[in-house]
Amino acid sequence: MSVARIAVVAGDGIGTEVTAQARKVIEAVLPGTEFDDYDLGARFYTRTGEVLPQAVEDELALHDAILLGAIGDPSVPPGVLERGLLLKLRFDFDQYVNLRPSKLWPGTTSPLAGVKPGEIDMVVVREGTEGLYVGAGGVLHKDTPAEIATEESLNTRYGVERVIRDAFARAQRRDRRHLTLVHKTNVLTKAGSLWARTFAAVAAEYPEVTTEYQHVDAASMFMVSNPQRFDVVVTDNLFGDIITDIAAAVTGGIGMAASGSVNPERKYPSTFEPVHGSAPDIAGKGIADPAAAILSASLLLEHLGHHDEARRVSEAVAAEVASRAAGATLRTAEVGDRVAAAL
Amino acid sequence: MSVARIAVVAGDGIGTEVTAQARKVIEAVLPGTEFDDYDLGARFYTRTGEVLPQAVEDELALHDAILLGAIGDPSVPPGVLERGLLLKLRFDFDQYVNLRPSKLWPGTTSPLAGVKPGEIDMVVVREGTEGLYVGAGGVLHKDTPAEIATEESLNTRYGVERVIRDAFARAQRRDRRHLTLVHKTNVLTKAGSLWARTFAAVAAEYPEVTTEYQHVDAASMFMVSNPQRFDVVVTDNLFGDIITDIAAAVTGGIGMAASGSVNPERKYPSTFEPVHGSAPDIAGKGIADPAAAILSASLLLEHLGHHDEARRVSEAVAAEVASRAAGATLRTAEVGDRVAAAL
Ligand SMILES: CC(C)[C@H](C(=O)O)[C@@H](O)C(=O)O
Ligand SMILES: CC(C)[C@H](C(=O)O)[C@@H](O)C(=O)O
Repeated sequence: MSVARIAVVAGDGIGTEVTAQARKVIEAVLPGTEFDDYDLGARFYTRTGEVLPQAVEDELALHDAILLGAIGDPSVPPGVLERGLLLKLRFDFDQYVNLRPSKLWPGTTSPLAGVKPGEIDMVVVREGTEGLYVGAGGVLHKDTPAEIATEESLNTRYGVERVIRDAFARAQRRDRRHLTLVHKTNVLTKAGSLWARTFAAVAAEYPEVTTEYQHVDAASMFMVSNPQRFDVVVTDNLFGDIITDIAAAVTGGIGMAASGSVNPERKYPSTFEPVHGSAPDIAGKGIADPAAAILSASLLLEHLGHHDEARRVSEAVAAEVASRAAGATLRTAEVGDRVAAAL
Repeated sequence: MSVARIAVVAGDGIGTEVTAQARKVIEAVLPGTEFDDYDLGARFYTRTGEVLPQAVEDELALHDAILLGAIGDPSVPPGVLERGLLLKLRFDFDQYVNLRPSKLWPGTTSPLAGVKPGEIDMVVVREGTEGLYVGAGGVLHKDTPAEIATEESLNTRYGVERVIRDAFARAQRRDRRHLTLVHKTNVLTKAGSLWARTFAAVAAEYPEVTTEYQHVDAASMFMVSNPQRFDVVVTDNLFGDIITDIAAAVTGGIGMAASGSVNPERKYPSTFEPVHGSAPDIAGKGIADPAAAILSASLLLEHLGHHDEARRVSEAVAAEVASRAAGATLRTAEVGDRVAAAL
C-alpha cells in the first residue's frame, strides 16, 4: 500500500489543537504519511472573504483523505462556513455515506441511568448527498404577509440504493448483523416509499442481516429509552443529522463522537472530523479533549484500508479514556502523546 | 358558559379503555357535558373500507372539541388511519397549534440519571398545518433505477406567524417566560429564514419573554443532556414530531404524554389525545394507564376556557400518580375512579 496523502484542515478554535493530536497519532501508527495543511475556516474567511476557493478544492481533491478539525467562529454569520465548506465537500466529493459510530466507552458515563459502558454500540449510516440538504426550494414575496418559503427533499433510487447497500455491507460485517431503517413513511409517503422499497430489495441480498423499520419519532424515543437495541441504522440526511446527535448525547455527549463523510469508492477524498465544534470558549487553553478527533483519524485509517492500524488507534484511545482519573485536568497534547506512545 | 359538546373518538385497542376514564373525569368536573360517540379507527375501517366519511366529519365539526383515544391496528396498512383521520382533522379543522407539554411528574422516573421530578417542565408548540406534512411532492419512474421521489415543505408567513404568536402568548403566561425557536436555519435556508425573521418580529412585541434559537440537532441533544433548560419551544411540524417524542422519553415515556391539536380561535373543534398508541398487546386487559388520556382531557378543558377545572384535573392526576406504590398493578378503571373521586 502506498503512503497516504492527507489534507489537514485544522480550522478554528480547538480544531487546531485536537487535529494536531490526531495527526500525531497517524504519524505514530503510519510513519511516512504525507500531510498538507490547508488554512480554511473562519480566520481564512475573515481575511479573504472566501470560504473555499476553487483552486484549493482542486488541491484537496488530489488527497486520499481530509482530516478536519472544526470550523466556525461567532464573528462569521451562521451557515456560511457550514454550507460553503462542510456541505460543499460532501456534495462535490460525492461523500454519500455519512458515518457516525456511537459507543459508550469504558471510562465514559451515559446520562441514562443504569446504562453501562459496552451496552451501547451502534453506527448510523446517514445519507450525505440528497434529501433536504440539496438546497432546493425558494422564497416568494419576502418580508410581506404573503411570503411563502419552500424546501424540497430530493431523493433518487440511485442515491438511496447506494447508501442502503453500504449499510447492509457494514451490518453484515458486525456481530449482531442488525439493520434498522429510520424514516417517516407514514407522512413522507413519496420519499418514504422509495426508501422502504429499496431497503426491502437490498435486504433480499443479505439474508443474514435482520432488519427493522422505525419512524424517526419512535427511533428518537428509543435512542433514549433503549439505545442498546440499535446496531447499524440507515437513514436520510436530515433524520441522520438529528438521531446521530441523540446517539452522541446518550453516549456521553460529543466528547467521543467521531464522523466520516465518505465516498466509499475513493473516487474523491473523504472527510473525517469530530462532531464537536470549534468551542471558542475553551480554545487556546490546551484543555480540549482530542479523543473524538483521534477516533476520527481511526475512521480515516479504516477507510484507507489500514484496518489493523485503525483498530489499534481506537483501542489506544479507549484505553487512554478508561485510565483517566475522575476529575483530573485533561491536557490536549498529553492525551495525544499517551495515545501515540501506546501504539 | 354553555355546556360543552364533546365528540368522543375512542378508537382502537386501549384507546377505548383510557378514553372511558378521561370521559368519567370530565363528567365529574363538568357535570352536564354532552358526549357523542363516533366509531372510527381500525375496526370501522375494516368494516366499511372508509376512514372518515364526509358526513361524520361534518358532524364532528359541530362539536366544541374531540376527545380521541388511539387508533391503529396491525391489520391496517401503516399510514392509512394516521393520514385519513388524525392528519386530516388537523388540516381540515385548521388545528395549527399542536400542543405537547412534557413534565417530569412526582412519582415518575426519568431515564436520565439524577434528574428529579419538577425539574423538567416544558411545552412544545408544534406547527400543525404546514411544512413537510402537507403531502406535496411526487414520484417519477417508480420501481426503475431512474426513480426519483420528492417531498416538499411548504411554509407561509401566515402559518408561521400565527403559531409563533401563540407560543409567545403561552410563554408570556408562564413563570420562566422563555421561548426557544427550533429549526435548521443553517441548512434549510429558505424556510429557516422565514421562521427566524418572523420569530424576531413577534419577539419585539413580547419584551418580557427571553428568547433563544437552537438548531434541531443541538436541541435534540439538549433534550437529553439538559432538558431543564426548556420552557416553551416553538418549531415546525416535522421537527416538533421528533423533539416531542424525545421530550416524552426523558420525562418517563409516553405514559404521561398528553397532546392537543388546537384551533385557538375555536372556529373548528380541536382534538385532544394521549401521545401513546392503541397498544394491541395490552388491549382488553384493563391495565393501560389512563393518565395521559386524562391529562389530555385537562388540556381540552383548558382550551374550552374551564381553567379551574383543567387545573384541578391535572392536579388530581399528579396526586394519583404520586401515590402509586412501586410495582403495584395498575387497573385502568380504578385510576379513573380515583381521579374522578378526588375532584
Ligand atoms: C454543520 C451542519 C451543516 C452539519 C449538518 O447539518 O450536517 C452538522 O450538524 C453535522 O451533523 O455534520
Ligand atoms: C401518527 C403520526 C402521523 C403523527 C405525526 O407524525 O404527527 C404522530 O407521530 C404524532 O406525533 O401525532
